[in-house]
Amino acid sequence: MAIKAPFQLLMLLGIVFLADQENPFLFKSNRVQTLFENENGHIRLLQRFDKRSKIFDNLQNYRLLEYNSKPHTLFLPQQNDADFILAVLSGKAILTVLKPNDRNSFNLQRGDIIKLPAGTIAYLANRDDKEDLRVLDLAIPVNRQGQIQSFLLFGSENQQSFLSGFSKNILQAAFNADYEEIERVLIEEHQKELQHRRDLRDRRRQQSQESNVIVKVSREQIEELSKNAKSSSKKSVSSESEPFNLGNREPIYSNKFGNFFEITPEKNPQLKDLDILVNAVEIKEGSLLLPHYNSRATVIVIAVEGKGEFELVGHRNENQQEQREEDEEEEEEGQEKSRQVQRYRARLSPGDVFVIPAGHPVAVSASSNLYLVGFGINAENNQRNFLAGEEDNVISQIHRPVKELAFPGSAQQVDRLLKNQKQSYFANAQPQQREEESQRKRGHISSILGGF
Amino acid sequence: MAIKAPFQLLMLLGIVFLADQENPFLFKSNRVQTLFENENGHIRLLQRFDKRSKIFDNLQNYRLLEYNSKPHTLFLPQQNDADFILAVLSGKAILTVLKPNDRNSFNLQRGDIIKLPAGTIAYLANRDDKEDLRVLDLAIPVNRQGQIQSFLLFGSENQQSFLSGFSKNILQAAFNADYEEIERVLIEEHQKELQHRRDLRDRRRQQSQESNVIVKVSREQIEELSKNAKSSSKKSVSSESEPFNLGNREPIYSNKFGNFFEITPEKNPQLKDLDILVNAVEIKEGSLLLPHYNSRATVIVIAVEGKGEFELVGHRNENQQEQREEDEEEEEEGQEKSRQVQRYRARLSPGDVFVIPAGHPVAVSASSNLYLVGFGINAENNQRNFLAGEEDNVISQIHRPVKELAFPGSAQQVDRLLKNQKQSYFANAQPQQREEESQRKRGHISSILGGF
Amino acid sequence: MAIKAPFQLLMLLGIVFLADQENPFLFKSNRVQTLFENENGHIRLLQRFDKRSKIFDNLQNYRLLEYNSKPHTLFLPQQNDADFILAVLSGKAILTVLKPNDRNSFNLQRGDIIKLPAGTIAYLANRDDKEDLRVLDLAIPVNRQGQIQSFLLFGSENQQSFLSGFSKNILQAAFNADYEEIERVLIEEHQKELQHRRDLRDRRRQQSQESNVIVKVSREQIEELSKNAKSSSKKSVSSESEPFNLGNREPIYSNKFGNFFEITPEKNPQLKDLDILVNAVEIKEGSLLLPHYNSRATVIVIAVEGKGEFELVGHRNENQQEQREEDEEEEEEGQEKSRQVQRYRARLSPGDVFVIPAGHPVAVSASSNLYLVGFGINAENNQRNFLAGEEDNVISQIHRPVKELAFPGSAQQVDRLLKNQKQSYFANAQPQQREEESQRKRGHISSILGGF
Repeated sequence: MAIKAPFQLLMLLGIVFLADQENPFLFKSNRVQTLFENENGHIRLLQRFDKRSKIFDNLQNYRLLEYNSKPHTLFLPQQNDADFILAVLSGKAILTVLKPNDRNSFNLQRGDIIKLPAGTIAYLANRDDKEDLRVLDLAIPVNRQGQIQSFLLFGSENQQSFLSGFSKNILQAAFNADYEEIERVLIEEHQKELQHRRDLRDRRRQQSQESNVIVKVSREQIEELSKNAKSSSKKSVSSESEPFNLGNREPIYSNKFGNFFEITPEKNPQLKDLDILVNAVEIKEGSLLLPHYNSRATVIVIAVEGKGEFELVGHRNENQQEQREEDEEEEEEGQEKSRQVQRYRARLSPGDVFVIPAGHPVAVSASSNLYLVGFGINAENNQRNFLAGEEDNVISQIHRPVKELAFPGSAQQVDRLLKNQKQSYFANAQPQQREEESQRKRGHISSILGGF
Repeated sequence: MAIKAPFQLLMLLGIVFLADQENPFLFKSNRVQTLFENENGHIRLLQRFDKRSKIFDNLQNYRLLEYNSKPHTLFLPQQNDADFILAVLSGKAILTVLKPNDRNSFNLQRGDIIKLPAGTIAYLANRDDKEDLRVLDLAIPVNRQGQIQSFLLFGSENQQSFLSGFSKNILQAAFNADYEEIERVLIEEHQKELQHRRDLRDRRRQQSQESNVIVKVSREQIEELSKNAKSSSKKSVSSESEPFNLGNREPIYSNKFGNFFEITPEKNPQLKDLDILVNAVEIKEGSLLLPHYNSRATVIVIAVEGKGEFELVGHRNENQQEQREEDEEEEEEGQEKSRQVQRYRARLSPGDVFVIPAGHPVAVSASSNLYLVGFGINAENNQRNFLAGEEDNVISQIHRPVKELAFPGSAQQVDRLLKNQKQSYFANAQPQQREEESQRKRGHISSILGGF
Repeated sequence: MAIKAPFQLLMLLGIVFLADQENPFLFKSNRVQTLFENENGHIRLLQRFDKRSKIFDNLQNYRLLEYNSKPHTLFLPQQNDADFILAVLSGKAILTVLKPNDRNSFNLQRGDIIKLPAGTIAYLANRDDKEDLRVLDLAIPVNRQGQIQSFLLFGSENQQSFLSGFSKNILQAAFNADYEEIERVLIEEHQKELQHRRDLRDRRRQQSQESNVIVKVSREQIEELSKNAKSSSKKSVSSESEPFNLGNREPIYSNKFGNFFEITPEKNPQLKDLDILVNAVEIKEGSLLLPHYNSRATVIVIAVEGKGEFELVGHRNENQQEQREEDEEEEEEGQEKSRQVQRYRARLSPGDVFVIPAGHPVAVSASSNLYLVGFGINAENNQRNFLAGEEDNVISQIHRPVKELAFPGSAQQVDRLLKNQKQSYFANAQPQQREEESQRKRGHISSILGGF
């Protein structure tokens, strides 16, 4: 790595400049692939974590999808060979989940979470008159590692119904009908048919949009879908198959600077099965989520609204991308010998994704009200340890003589310093004791958060 | 892939010709390796699934074995570093399973299933006077992924007892006896010993066949093995360690065209432990197992008796064999963007194996009474969704307005079409409404099933 | 493999010479990497099992560490991204485990076992006045396969506190204090600061050793750490989070030649969670742990004290190191066809490690009192089958007619031979019936154990 020498020099000078693309924990919007897009909405898929960096070995079989649709639209029926955890970021939806001899519809709103098991045929309507629907999906494929296959029940121009994969004979026997009827009623016509047919279809498509994955639906149709639709429980998050809301439970951390909501596998059987936690964090403008780390969960975080910045502390060598095969042995040795820490930081805008591996300390500050949603894998028995603040501060628990031995200051100095921060979990990103000064110099917050 | 261009042309013409070797879901008998064979029987091992196609990532640690022996023979004691699920296809056996201070013998017959845990010393006798014994084993190795090691308790010409691996000193101390006695009584003599010894042994071998893995046994010896042998319960399939029979429970699907028996992990602790389901399907001559898919299980199916054909619907790019390392990224992208479906079909003869990945629709027709046995991995909470027929037809569950939007026909037309098939699960492969016509044209069934 | 031909010749001659480095089951001390060392102690890490040999596929995510420290020293606080099972080999320790709002201290002594979950901040003191502390750690990483990252709470010359990874602004806001104070009290000073500071620190370091991972502690400090420290229960091994002792339970095998202590996942929830067993074996001088194999566990064994020899029986081709990628297919085929057994043996000295894969028979003899500690992975439902001795001898369980068919001797001869060994589990490595003779020839034991 020719880059190493000047980089180390910069380290010595206490300066770290990492371009976003060199920060392996950050996934900007250019790391996203559009699977489908039309005037009614889109579906996007984040790059494979393990293709980005070998750090994410344990995320090989996790993918992140974002679904976005306009008011009064429907995402047509399909099934995928992956388990999904859906989290509604904004808007109002009706999700219908089919079973062989039954169906369930659910009203979903911001903060609702539901598991959609692999192979389930489902469709999703945006039932709102005005607001776009945004849904985040964590997908865990069941066939191939990290790869999702979709099977559509309907045909379109570029995509075929999976029914069309069967031969005429099988379809005739299966439906006990003539192939022409089956084709006419269930299967989109062949691409290479006569032109006048194509023209006919084109006209019809104006009305029914049957050739698209996301189509418009009328108010009446929405109403029919809404019948018997259940909403997430107001009281409980322990439902086996119904949606539950992140806001149903009290925040696990809360003060005037922010709120932290979390549902762990221990609380919900849908999450337990996949060993996933889901959380939502609100950080008020000018506030800081205090430095902390997760003991065993790796958390994939999406910036939903607002702006801010994260700092993640890792080791020097983690910034090695796309070098999976070479020098494994050498790299391993280096990794184990070097304990040089490195700061990975980046500004956050809506749509950005960052990953916090287990054991890695992180802090997040908000330059405008920031709303984050996170999926944690390997979540069972995860414990969050704070490194500053009044409560849950693991440093406070160290025996006095060990403080003396471990830190340059005396135990007394350490204790005095630790008590300076009266807040827990969230605090002012611009500390009170220096508030006067900073109130004088306006724009200080922006210099804290944006100034590198 | 130079093959692509003409292939796509054929697709456009609506014609797909796939040689069997290009159908990655099919394993014909040339994909089998003989591990052992003599006049008394043989043991065969199917090619590794993941070596055939990268589709089968999740089958890396599953192997399929077939064991076949003549009447009144014994498969001598050995242990393997793999868990086995045994399924008796035909014949009558006595399986003896040894424990450190106990042993259990079981009478086995067609449809019996039993788990043989890794490292267990066992031996298997064909106790029938006339019929060959055929046993299918799904093996799940505990040491190396996808590789099975056998340890024989006895020595033979090409194979050594694992006792012979210890040094003379250790054996003398272990058995508290002279090495000569140990060698004479427990261990097969050295290959390079003097010729007259070899001659002696050759004569002795005529009587005892000690040099083979599968040896003849007398009626009296069979009788001794049968003592205290238990049979599979007539009532229950929930035994912890004893065999259970696929036919003990009512078929889960049944009509005059076929029967479908299945035992899922939820029903039996031996299967639960390994997350395996086992099923057996009888399709009557001229009948069709209706199109359906498994929501999360991948099922390995063996054609035991009869002839027929399967059609499996997948994506275009799944037909990529032996390209594991190259163009991962590119392939992934292609896979995710393309939703072109492709039909994979093949005729089935006894001994053929095919694999149905989760989410992939499949239909099977029988040109003569067809008997299939299947092992499903990732089986817990698997759900079978039918795409045609009266019951468990997931398409029927779609809301009317969504039918309207998803299919080219109107909701009314879709419903009418779906109701045409009065049967469920199994149906006539040659539909009744066209029966007259087809009865006129004799041989129509064979043209349905064999005509491509 | 050019080596093959002469090697096979040696096999035919009944002679096997394997250099230690060609014995893939053995890890001598040169296979160890020193992670840290000073005058107070050291931490060492064994080579990755899977880098040594492809046999150890299933050990990819297991690492073995050894920690060694002088009396009255402290291993300073850190956390690791791996679960640890600690086994105390010798000495007396106080382990302190921190939680966000609590801490627990434990007195540990020889034979104590405790699980330290990933991400837990902990520190370990040697509380003894004279004896060195030796602790063995089995580590199971949670982020990257087979790789452990340590995060130190304190800074030193070559290593940085993970607090120092955050920016000044974040630290100021987090601790609500000036950066200068934070740096002075919690963070080791910069390497490139002015020389006179460095000199000051160097002087201070003489007193406090704050720059090292393992530092001296005074008797008074030890005393403060000991307050409220709990010891392992005398009665139970089923503690959820407290240490338990291998000697708390009766040995599972015991006679005058040796003792075998074992705690399986079924007995302890800390082990159950990770599917690990822990055992300790004492083999008296001149005694033999009889040939046996584990049905499903792979056991990593460390020679703690004494000298001896192990013999492990495997297949010929297992002696293939560092050929991971090439000839997979070919090798697989060979492996499955060949059942040629091979003896792998080596002398054992303190610090040596050997691995016993599932299903592989092993015997261990002691030339001086030998003390072994083992970690078994894949331990649930593991069963130990002995191949010689009175009890738990699986060969005794074979039906008479099968003995007749499987072994060269008659069933009567086999039974007579098996009854020769009156002992179980452990026996005299120099059998009694030949004792007179061997007492005449002095040095016979050493020729048994050391003579190859």
